[in-house]
Amino acid sequence: MALTVDLNADMGESFGPWVMGRDADLLKIITSANVACGFHAGDPDVMARTMRMAVENGVGIGAHPGFADLQGFGRRRIKLTHTELRNLVHYQLGAAQAMARAAQGRVDHLKLHGALANMAADDEAMARACYEAALEIDPDLIVMVLVGTAQERAARALGCRIAGEIFADRAYNDDATLVDRSLPGAVIHDAEHAATRIAAMVKAGAIITESGRRLPVQIDTICLHGDTPEAVQIASAVRAALEADGVDLKRLAG
Amino acid sequence: MALTVDLNADMGESFGPWVMGRDADLLKIITSANVACGFHAGDPDVMARTMRMAVENGVGIGAHPGFADLQGFGRRRIKLTHTELRNLVHYQLGAAQAMARAAQGRVDHLKLHGALANMAADDEAMARACYEAALEIDPDLIVMVLVGTAQERAARALGCRIAGEIFADRAYNDDATLVDRSLPGAVIHDAEHAATRIAAMVKAGAIITESGRRLPVQIDTICLHGDTPEAVQIASAVRAALEADGVDLKRLAG
Amino acid sequence: MALTVDLNADMGESFGPWVMGRDADLLKIITSANVACGFHAGDPDVMARTMRMAVENGVGIGAHPGFADLQGFGRRRIKLTHTELRNLVHYQLGAAQAMARAAQGRVDHLKLHGALANMAADDEAMARACYEAALEIDPDLIVMVLVGTAQERAARALGCRIAGEIFADRAYNDDATLVDRSLPGAVIHDAEHAATRIAAMVKAGAIITESGRRLPVQIDTICLHGDTPEAVQIASAVRAALEADGVDLKRLAG
Amino acid sequence: MALTVDLNADMGESFGPWVMGRDADLLKIITSANVACGFHAGDPDVMARTMRMAVENGVGIGAHPGFADLQGFGRRRIKLTHTELRNLVHYQLGAAQAMARAAQGRVDHLKLHGALANMAADDEAMARACYEAALEIDPDLIVMVLVGTAQERAARALGCRIAGEIFADRAYNDDATLVDRSLPGAVIHDAEHAATRIAAMVKAGAIITESGRRLPVQIDTICLHGDTPEAVQIASAVRAALEADGVDLKRLAG
Repeated sequence: MALTVDLNADMGESFGPWVMGRDADLLKIITSANVACGFHAGDPDVMARTMRMAVENGVGIGAHPGFADLQGFGRRRIKLTHTELRNLVHYQLGAAQAMARAAQGRVDHLKLHGALANMAADDEAMARACYEAALEIDPDLIVMVLVGTAQERAARALGCRIAGEIFADRAYNDDATLVDRSLPGAVIHDAEHAATRIAAMVKAGAIITESGRRLPVQIDTICLHGDTPEAVQIASAVRAALEADGVDLKRLAG
Repeated sequence: MALTVDLNADMGESFGPWVMGRDADLLKIITSANVACGFHAGDPDVMARTMRMAVENGVGIGAHPGFADLQGFGRRRIKLTHTELRNLVHYQLGAAQAMARAAQGRVDHLKLHGALANMAADDEAMARACYEAALEIDPDLIVMVLVGTAQERAARALGCRIAGEIFADRAYNDDATLVDRSLPGAVIHDAEHAATRIAAMVKAGAIITESGRRLPVQIDTICLHGDTPEAVQIASAVRAALEADGVDLKRLAG
Repeated sequence: MALTVDLNADMGESFGPWVMGRDADLLKIITSANVACGFHAGDPDVMARTMRMAVENGVGIGAHPGFADLQGFGRRRIKLTHTELRNLVHYQLGAAQAMARAAQGRVDHLKLHGALANMAADDEAMARACYEAALEIDPDLIVMVLVGTAQERAARALGCRIAGEIFADRAYNDDATLVDRSLPGAVIHDAEHAATRIAAMVKAGAIITESGRRLPVQIDTICLHGDTPEAVQIASAVRAALEADGVDLKRLAG
Repeated sequence: MALTVDLNADMGESFGPWVMGRDADLLKIITSANVACGFHAGDPDVMARTMRMAVENGVGIGAHPGFADLQGFGRRRIKLTHTELRNLVHYQLGAAQAMARAAQGRVDHLKLHGALANMAADDEAMARACYEAALEIDPDLIVMVLVGTAQERAARALGCRIAGEIFADRAYNDDATLVDRSLPGAVIHDAEHAATRIAAMVKAGAIITESGRRLPVQIDTICLHGDTPEAVQIASAVRAALEADGVDLKRLAG
């Protein structure tokens, strides 16, 4: 049976008059879009346009909630109680669900954004609060998790549908953490290199670390970035390499 | 058969550290709560608390969307395209639906807030854009309309479930419009006067104007205000008068 | 004696992670920068960077206040009282003054933004409220006005320093109003055409209308746009044409 | 020579339609008002009203900057770079200066708010960044510091004008830190107790700790709270006790 994998990218990160990302181009390459929900980026109009484009391209829609921090783009850590986190997720997921429905689509998955995601990758109780909140709204929701982190542990403990995610353009340490951005080679800018590497990982069903070690993980989706100059190039190369290797590219909720 | 009517009030208009209204008191009197959705007032935490209290009190929940204008409390007119209005309604209604579900409740009705409501009372196409957007998300939603306005005409043309609304504390002109606030007697501050008047209108199935004329209208719900000093007193008196007259007080989606 | 004119453009319209305009390029061409003050665009970090660059390029700094409406980019009309307008101007001008001082510069002029400017161009009392507020903070401030509008009349009535402004890329009607954007030729996209036209107007001391009429006005500054694809090209061409004609390009507060 | 002390309280913490605090009452008791600058509370209209009332009551005006976090009331810790902190202070102080001028007053002092103040009380470099930024805008500004904290050390190192502050309603540990709010007696609710205690400290020129120890500090100002039910009562009692002891109550910038 053929291997199957999803390609995801953050989308709908424009706001009011400000444009970010090359959504139209990426939507021709990816299979799942993580749509910003208006707290760290996006607004109702941007969400509507983004979701309509996703539906037109047959791309799956995910809610991508973040902290209420437009200026900081949701990248600043804000300490919230678990109750506040739950309310934050309920609100943004609900907004996304309605907008997806209005665009003739539906929210298939949830992926946390920015500092919210980073904090949840380190703090299982926090991740659990967020995911539990999301599942209260839709028990069939697919929770996208960074493999090997507290995100994955929290989602596994909840017994929900999970999509394990690896990064297309980041190098990994032997303990499955990402190589620190300050170190050389941490971020991969070369499209062919990224593509070869990801194809090898998908086929191996494992993260291949900088040192060459293989860490078996559940790889359901590849995270592509949309806001770098080389984003579209890397995305295309990754897609081409996977297709060349006979891997099926399919949105999460087939 | 006994007459039935709903008592509604705006709720959840606090924001962050700021408290507005006497929600806990009013929830013991009213049967439907119009919950602010975070754009002109409210935030996810306020919404969650308000909806939980509504559910505990057996009070129906409505989404109460407004313009994105916290400082102006949604009372400033903002000219949006119909597409922008639709997105605004989709977003806020969806957020409210998810939060209601998390509070073990559901959104039964929709009522527009502030300048959005005032503009829609004058502009049928605008009202229609808002209501159509809401019905795309939930075709069974009850649309609360100010009787005799473009709101009512728009909802009737859509053929949706409607709750016709009159004000407990406002005097009416002979053409069913409200007496201008600058005129004496426009706003009723005396609880007993308000109560007697409303009971008479409900029994008559008609607005009774300042001049004594009766304008037959569909009265499904009485709007009570929550932010004035006499709010709770008027609400109690209206409820008592209706009960004394044998009118059944029941939430919209019984 | 040589003719002198200023070239102005809106600057600092980025916000948080979102970039707008080609400020670095334009700052090499213009002589005065209208810096957004954080209400419709800009934030303290963007303002600081923009003002520092302006100072480094010897470009004059102006406060460019707008309505508090990031999503609408200050382009939505909001009805405020004159008192609210005054407070809005006080606040944004004060913030700009402090940030300019921190960047070793100073605020020389004020120019209203977007819907605030458009409304003030039609409503002299409103323009007066805004300008009077600004002059209360700095009586020597230069008020940049669209010539022939209520903006100019309000500023003249106040007896303050004025910089009369014309547009580099907009055609004029015979009554000095702008040709409606929906009409052909209303917006000039050709850099050479814009340049020739502006040079002729500056030398004539008059607006030259589409029909060829000359309307004598006080031309102190030329408004260049920064957010269109051809912005930098038009700005360069206008500057070159004026220099070729021996016109001195000088910031307002020499 | 008589002892002199200032009484300060946070003011102008309303926002849009939401009212907080009993500013009008407190302004008759205090001598310095710390006015919120629109980022964590306040808006241009609230600032204008508050400053005008302060001027009318002969109360000194201070800028009270906080994090840009209305929902969290500036009480959530947000990690900013020193450059971002400086811009934040420049902006808010500048806005306050202009609004004070428009109200016929001036900004005499600066006091950090909420999480910004708490973080600066622990982190001297951060406090220094904030204070240095403020002094760049006005070198004569009085910096209000919590005595015994990194705030005080940072201000002393800068050699600026300082107002040392103690709390009217908080108990102190022997190391001059505040008794944790979770412990009994940490917050003083009894007006007479607070008043007696503060009068004793002012006369002693020392913090008197829970255990009775005296820690000599520079006491220039007493912080009174404005948002608790007993706020006005405590403020009145403190003022009366100090006056009874012959202490001169005088705003900082006499």
